[in-house]
Amino acid sequence: MDAWNALTERITEIETLSGVHALLEWDQQTYMPRGAAEGRGRQSALLARLRHERFTDPRVGEWLAELAHAELDAPRRAAVRVLTRQYRRATCLPAALVEALGHARNEGYNAWMAAREADRFAPFEAPLQRLLDLTREQAAAYGSAAHPYDALLEDYDPGSTVAELRPMFTRLGAELNVLLDALAGRPHPRGFAGALDVDGQRTLSERVLDDLGFDRSRGRLDLSEHPFSTGIGPGDTRITTHFHAENFLAALGGTIHEAGHGMYEQGLRTDRPGWGLDVAAGMGLHESQSRFWENIIGRSLPFCRYLAPHMQALWPDRGITPEALYGAFNRVERSLVRIFADEVTYNLHVVARFELELGILEGNLQARDLPDAWDDAYRRHVGVVSPRPHDGVLQDVHWSGGMFGYFPSYTLGNLYAASLGATMQAELPDMWRNVEAGHFAPILAWMRAKVHVRGSEADAPEIIRDACGMRDPVADLMDSLWARHGALYGVTR
Amino acid sequence: MDAWNALTERITEIETLSGVHALLEWDQQTYMPRGAAEGRGRQSALLARLRHERFTDPRVGEWLAELAHAELDAPRRAAVRVLTRQYRRATCLPAALVEALGHARNEGYNAWMAAREADRFAPFEAPLQRLLDLTREQAAAYGSAAHPYDALLEDYDPGSTVAELRPMFTRLGAELNVLLDALAGRPHPRGFAGALDVDGQRTLSERVLDDLGFDRSRGRLDLSEHPFSTGIGPGDTRITTHFHAENFLAALGGTIHEAGHGMYEQGLRTDRPGWGLDVAAGMGLHESQSRFWENIIGRSLPFCRYLAPHMQALWPDRGITPEALYGAFNRVERSLVRIFADEVTYNLHVVARFELELGILEGNLQARDLPDAWDDAYRRHVGVVSPRPHDGVLQDVHWSGGMFGYFPSYTLGNLYAASLGATMQAELPDMWRNVEAGHFAPILAWMRAKVHVRGSEADAPEIIRDACGMRDPVADLMDSLWARHGALYGVTR
Repeated sequence: MDAWNALTERITEIETLSGVHALLEWDQQTYMPRGAAEGRGRQSALLARLRHERFTDPRVGEWLAELAHAELDAPRRAAVRVLTRQYRRATCLPAALVEALGHARNEGYNAWMAAREADRFAPFEAPLQRLLDLTREQAAAYGSAAHPYDALLEDYDPGSTVAELRPMFTRLGAELNVLLDALAGRPHPRGFAGALDVDGQRTLSERVLDDLGFDRSRGRLDLSEHPFSTGIGPGDTRITTHFHAENFLAALGGTIHEAGHGMYEQGLRTDRPGWGLDVAAGMGLHESQSRFWENIIGRSLPFCRYLAPHMQALWPDRGITPEALYGAFNRVERSLVRIFADEVTYNLHVVARFELELGILEGNLQARDLPDAWDDAYRRHVGVVSPRPHDGVLQDVHWSGGMFGYFPSYTLGNLYAASLGATMQAELPDMWRNVEAGHFAPILAWMRAKVHVRGSEADAPEIIRDACGMRDPVADLMDSLWARHGALYGVTR
Repeated sequence: MDAWNALTERITEIETLSGVHALLEWDQQTYMPRGAAEGRGRQSALLARLRHERFTDPRVGEWLAELAHAELDAPRRAAVRVLTRQYRRATCLPAALVEALGHARNEGYNAWMAAREADRFAPFEAPLQRLLDLTREQAAAYGSAAHPYDALLEDYDPGSTVAELRPMFTRLGAELNVLLDALAGRPHPRGFAGALDVDGQRTLSERVLDDLGFDRSRGRLDLSEHPFSTGIGPGDTRITTHFHAENFLAALGGTIHEAGHGMYEQGLRTDRPGWGLDVAAGMGLHESQSRFWENIIGRSLPFCRYLAPHMQALWPDRGITPEALYGAFNRVERSLVRIFADEVTYNLHVVARFELELGILEGNLQARDLPDAWDDAYRRHVGVVSPRPHDGVLQDVHWSGGMFGYFPSYTLGNLYAASLGATMQAELPDMWRNVEAGHFAPILAWMRAKVHVRGSEADAPEIIRDACGMRDPVADLMDSLWARHGALYGVTR
């Protein structure tokens, strides 16, 4: 077991460095003075290099090769499988390609910023083309897969493939449009609007976090421009939010979303340091946890019944009722920009991007084609077209950083969350009564047992299959959306 | 210049890691959730190990040896001198001794905590004896010095020696006692007392920091249990404070003290990364910066004239006058505990410890002797004796962590600060008018030019000599203390 001990010792060191790296990034977005930006860049780059050097050390490959033939129990076999996949991906790209990608991402980001500023696609076109070329090279270098896009998906959602996602997303897009067409023209549910003081927002958010089960003795809530969650080490999971006096419900939804991510991190096992197993099994599964709490729980009427008295106590005489909150949480409208989209339309933004990214990887779309292709995909899938590239093809940062293959995670998260919610509802008959009573512990315990403690022992699709059985996630998601929005808008399927 | 480039690249990496390490420690004392303690310990230990491995790499020794014979300009020669000294100290101790010291410090700290808790010296005696033995071994291993204590001083105050400190501290102790005897029995100056709201304390503290010249765009003020200052990187110097509603003036003094440390860090050059030069030239000089601002500036009547109107604006009708603040800032009384001592008595606490530490290093004092030796030294130097070991021989953490040789820094800081203040007053005739007007920029600029920008190009005694000429620091400190306290207590020399 020398190889096993050497390997886990090395991976423990890398995990420790990852936590330190996460602290650098958390601090950068919360408390870092602005004069520290340049120095922080050097600190982050050094940490990234140290982690990379330690992981791509040829000895790591030798230990893994030796362990591939060793007699190991099932979790250790899983550890070797997961680490071998990561090692292969970290070492299989030619150094020249890695360097070229680094430069292209940097230039891409700067060009994208300039293009957004100017509201013109042109300044982004050449750098984007360079990124497309290099990304196709990268997918090829990752090795044979049924579809070149599969090679990219493995970075974010190992276990997912185009063969499986394409029909699922196509069907989901069509069914979402049926729902949106049914809702269109109907009056929006009455909601709650009005400014709420930020001190009260903070008090209530912390109360909700505590009730949900986000452990603030092993984590924190802070403020940042863009909400995020991060794991700094065992016992140290931090989330951020951003309060607006004018729009507390959106901020609260965001806080619950990040708490979902955070509770996943807090639920990962800590007794296997260096196994590489106790991390999220992909971004889609991570997103399932945030979306489950934000959408399935947080937008439900029982949750509004739990929340309303707390809000009334803080802000009496403001007409806060469970029904008003429920209406406000569930407004639906086709919209141009993904990050502001409601939970129904959101997935159509992803369906459109997935189609475009497949076209890019298949070699059918070049940078110069993308503005028109974007508008065309939006017309067909989302039903709206932006008059300005700023809110069209330039709206997302992802491509400028060479992140192709990430977008499906968001909708995978919604699909997984829907199946988890449907299964939980069947297995925990008191689920909604508990939500209404603010008693979330049984829900979190179920999720811990079915998802969190498994870490990356299996890929996400297998974890979901084990948790939910053979379900139809598109049907689960559509059922959930129809149940809430159909009722609120007074339409039936 | 290959060796120079390789060396500075390596040292830059170590400096970057040091900044990351400082962030880990800052976070631990400010925002870290308590559940993260164990993981944070591992992160800090890993960073310490990485820094040590990188610095003690034999190639560093080879580069330094090569550069010792190279033709270099004066600052590069200084860099090689400073780094060679550090390298020698980092590599000259046998590994077994380093390990034994590590264990003994850990055990010493735990035993000290237990002994404090029990208010009994006995549980600390054996672990302390082990630390004394190992510290003597360590001093011997550092190599030949005129006095074994000199070898320890070099860790904290390179350039200072027992031959120089012993007569200076003896004389200072005697002269301080003359002053304290003169003040004894006289009525204390009238001061200001009363609770002040913490929000106002924060507002005023930030205003004072900005006025003094602590740059909050390249630093921060946060809260922690024990105030401290730390450099996280170029453009990132953080200080902390602790507000008490009941005792704002002490908290403000502490904040100004930390700001003095912080402004020193902010004044260090940033254009020579990897030279190892742009760090403080010892703890005594660092302390001179905090004490200069806290005592020479912060306890002066002109400063009270600057401060009083700001306090009156925040807290009207509380009888806040410059004279009341001046009285409150300058109360003097022999006291048992160093960290609560006034600025006069403080140095006597150091004189007593210095005498004891010399006895330890000369082999004349063993652990079992220390309770009585402590009380005896206190009786002779400080004029008070604690009835309880908790506030006597057990009052400081330093020895429990093997820190012998650190205490002189505190009084060196007061001595350097007094000479700097006296010289500044002669060179900047408007100095006190500027303080009264809240116009501290010329003072900070003078300090920057004379002290900060020099970094570690020379040892502290040489930097002070260059800044102040040949002065008598004991006379400077005594003049400053007599001028304020003599006048307030109505006694003349």
